[in-house]
Amino acid sequence: MKLTDLPTPSLVLDRGILLHNLATMARALARHGVPLRPHMKTAKSIDVARLALVGQPGGITVSTLAEAEYFSAHGIADILYAVGITPQKLDQVAKLNQNGAAIIVLTDDPDTASAIAAHPAPPRTLIEVDTGEGRGGVGPHDAALLDIAARLGPNLAGVMTHAGHSYAGRNIADMARIAEAERHGAVRAAERLREAGHTVQIVSMGSSPTALHAASLVGITEVRAGVYMFGDLFQAEIGTHAIEDIAMTVLTSVIGRRPGKLLVDAGGMALSKDRSTEATTHDYGFGLALDIAGKPTLGNAIVRKAYQEHGVIELDPQYPVSLPVGAKLRIAPNHTCMTAAAHDRYYVTDGGDEVVAIWPRVNGW
Amino acid sequence: MKLTDLPTPSLVLDRGILLHNLATMARALARHGVPLRPHMKTAKSIDVARLALVGQPGGITVSTLAEAEYFSAHGIADILYAVGITPQKLDQVAKLNQNGAAIIVLTDDPDTASAIAAHPAPPRTLIEVDTGEGRGGVGPHDAALLDIAARLGPNLAGVMTHAGHSYAGRNIADMARIAEAERHGAVRAAERLREAGHTVQIVSMGSSPTALHAASLVGITEVRAGVYMFGDLFQAEIGTHAIEDIAMTVLTSVIGRRPGKLLVDAGGMALSKDRSTEATTHDYGFGLALDIAGKPTLGNAIVRKAYQEHGVIELDPQYPVSLPVGAKLRIAPNHTCMTAAAHDRYYVTDGGDEVVAIWPRVNGW
Repeated sequence: MKLTDLPTPSLVLDRGILLHNLATMARALARHGVPLRPHMKTAKSIDVARLALVGQPGGITVSTLAEAEYFSAHGIADILYAVGITPQKLDQVAKLNQNGAAIIVLTDDPDTASAIAAHPAPPRTLIEVDTGEGRGGVGPHDAALLDIAARLGPNLAGVMTHAGHSYAGRNIADMARIAEAERHGAVRAAERLREAGHTVQIVSMGSSPTALHAASLVGITEVRAGVYMFGDLFQAEIGTHAIEDIAMTVLTSVIGRRPGKLLVDAGGMALSKDRSTEATTHDYGFGLALDIAGKPTLGNAIVRKAYQEHGVIELDPQYPVSLPVGAKLRIAPNHTCMTAAAHDRYYVTDGGDEVVAIWPRVNGW
Repeated sequence: MKLTDLPTPSLVLDRGILLHNLATMARALARHGVPLRPHMKTAKSIDVARLALVGQPGGITVSTLAEAEYFSAHGIADILYAVGITPQKLDQVAKLNQNGAAIIVLTDDPDTASAIAAHPAPPRTLIEVDTGEGRGGVGPHDAALLDIAARLGPNLAGVMTHAGHSYAGRNIADMARIAEAERHGAVRAAERLREAGHTVQIVSMGSSPTALHAASLVGITEVRAGVYMFGDLFQAEIGTHAIEDIAMTVLTSVIGRRPGKLLVDAGGMALSKDRSTEATTHDYGFGLALDIAGKPTLGNAIVRKAYQEHGVIELDPQYPVSLPVGAKLRIAPNHTCMTAAAHDRYYVTDGGDEVVAIWPRVNGW
C-alpha cells in the first residue's frame, strides 16, 4: 500500500524521523546518566512505546487510565499515571494492579492522600510538586508536602514535577534556566521528605524542552517527555525541535480549488483547533502544508481556516502550485498531541511512499 | 447507574433538552412545509438520528464516509455526504450503495464531475453552490454551474448550499437576511439548471441559524442542520440557542484546588481547543462550568486554561464554592461538534441524576 492509496484524512508517521528523535532524547539524557520514562500521551501506541523504551528501564508515563489499561495489557507494568488522581479512580487502578500492572499515581491533595492510604489496595503514590508551572502541585517548601507524605505513609514513592511553563520559553537558555528550577524544586522537595524520615525512591521531572536542555540532573532519578517523539510546529517555534524532524503529519486530499487557495479534507476534526503557534513569531494557522513526500515544496502554505471537515490552505504566492481535486498533501501540525487524538491509527512509512506498517492508537478515557 | 458513578471525563446528554431542541427545529421548518435532512456531523449517533427523523422523510446528512457507513449499516439509506467528493472516494461510496445505501455526493469541480460520470457505479450528485460563505461551491451565476451539470449528465440530482457565514451573524435579523440570500442563491442555481434542460430534484440549503430564522423557504426542497440538536455556548452567543437548552455537557471531576481555581480532568482533549466564543461578547474560554445537575449555580465559572488532560476553572468570586477532589461538575462546551468528537459515547439522562441509556458515537473517517 502506498500513501496515494490511503483514505484521507489520516495520520502518517515517518519511522526514520521518529527513530532520529528518540535517539536525540536518549543522547541528551545519557549525558546525565538519568533514565527516561517516556510519556505516551502523544503517541498512545505500543509500537512507539517499544521503540522509545530501547535502552531505558522500561517504565512509561501515561495521561489517562485508558492508556494505563492498554499499555499494561501489552506487557508494560511500570506505569506512572501523571494526572492528579481522584478517590473514585482508585478502584480501577487497583484492578489493573491486581492484573499485573504496577501503576503509580499522583496527588497534591491531603484528603486524597488519606483516601489512598485507606484504600484496600493502595497504589504507590508520588506527590506532585509545583516548580513554577502553577498548574497542579504543592510548593517544594509548603507544609502540605509533609502533611501529604505523612498521610500516604508507606504508599509514598517519591515526588514528581512538570515544567510545563518551559513551553513559554523561546530559546535554549530559557529552557536550561527553567530546567534548573524544575530540578532544584523537585530535589528540594525530596530532601525535605527524606529529612522527615520518608523514603523517596522516585524524583521525577520532565517536559520535552527541559529534558533536552537541562544542564544538570543531579538528584533526579528519571525524566519524562512525550512530544519530542514526533515534534510539531510549536516545538519548532520554541527552538526545541527542528521543523524537518516533525515525524507525524496529516495526509489530506484536495477537495476544492479557489484562486490562491486549496480546500482540503483536513479540518478542525483532523487537525484539532489548537492554535498554539499563534503565540510564536510564525503563526502557522492550523498547520503547514507539505507535499505528499512531506517536503516543504509549497513554501509558506498555511491552513488558515479549519471548519469541521474542511481546511482552507492559503497558498504561498512564491510557490505557485496547481493541484487537481484528489491530489494529496501532508499537513504538519501545530500541536501533535491534539492532532493525533482524532485518529485511531498511524500509517507508518520509512520516508518513502510505501506504507510499511499500521500502528493503532488508544484514544479516549 | 448515576452521574456520580460515571468515569470522567465523559459526555452527558440530556434527552429532554434534546427532544425540546428537535421540536423547536421541526416547528420552525413546519411553518414552511419544508422537510429536514438532519446533519449528523454533531451527534454521530443512530439513537439521536432516530429522534431527529421523527416526522421527517428519513434522509440524513453526514460529514464523513465513516458516518455514511455507520448510518447505512443502521438502516438509513438516504444519505447526503455534504463534503466535496474526491474521485478516490467514489469506490467506497459505490460499495456502500451496492449494499443498500443511497449516498448522494457533492462537487463543485468540473473534473470531478467527469470522474463521477465515468465511474462504473456513479452516485447521484449535487452541485455545491456558494451563496456567500466563500468556502466551497460555484456561484449561482457562474458558467461552471452549467459545465458541471453537463458533465454529470443523468447523475445530477440537484444543488446544495451552506450558509456557514451565518455564524458571523449576531442576531435574528442577520440570520434572516443571510437565510434569504442562501435561499435565493440556491433557487437561482436550480432555475438556471432547469432552464438548461436539467432535472433538479433537490434544492438543499441549511445551517442551524438560517434553518431556524428563514422568513421564506420557497423553492427549497430540504433543509440541513445539525448543531441545533445539542446547541453550545457559541450558538447561545449568536442568539440561536438558549443557554439553558444546551443538551450536551462534559462531566468532569475536580482533581486539584487552588485559591479561586479548580483543576479538573477535562482539558483540551475532552473539551477540544475550540475557542469560538472568543469572537463573541462573552468569552467562555474553553467552556462554562455548571454543577453536576447541569445548572449554572457556579455563576461565571470559566475553563480558562486547557492543557491536554487538565482544565483550569476560574471560579466566580460572586459564587464561592468549596469542592473536594473527586467532586463532579459539568462543562458546557464552546462548540459541541468539536467537543463531542473526542468521546465514544453519550451517557444519557432524563434531566435527573440517573443514566437511562448509553448511546455510541461514530468518530473518525
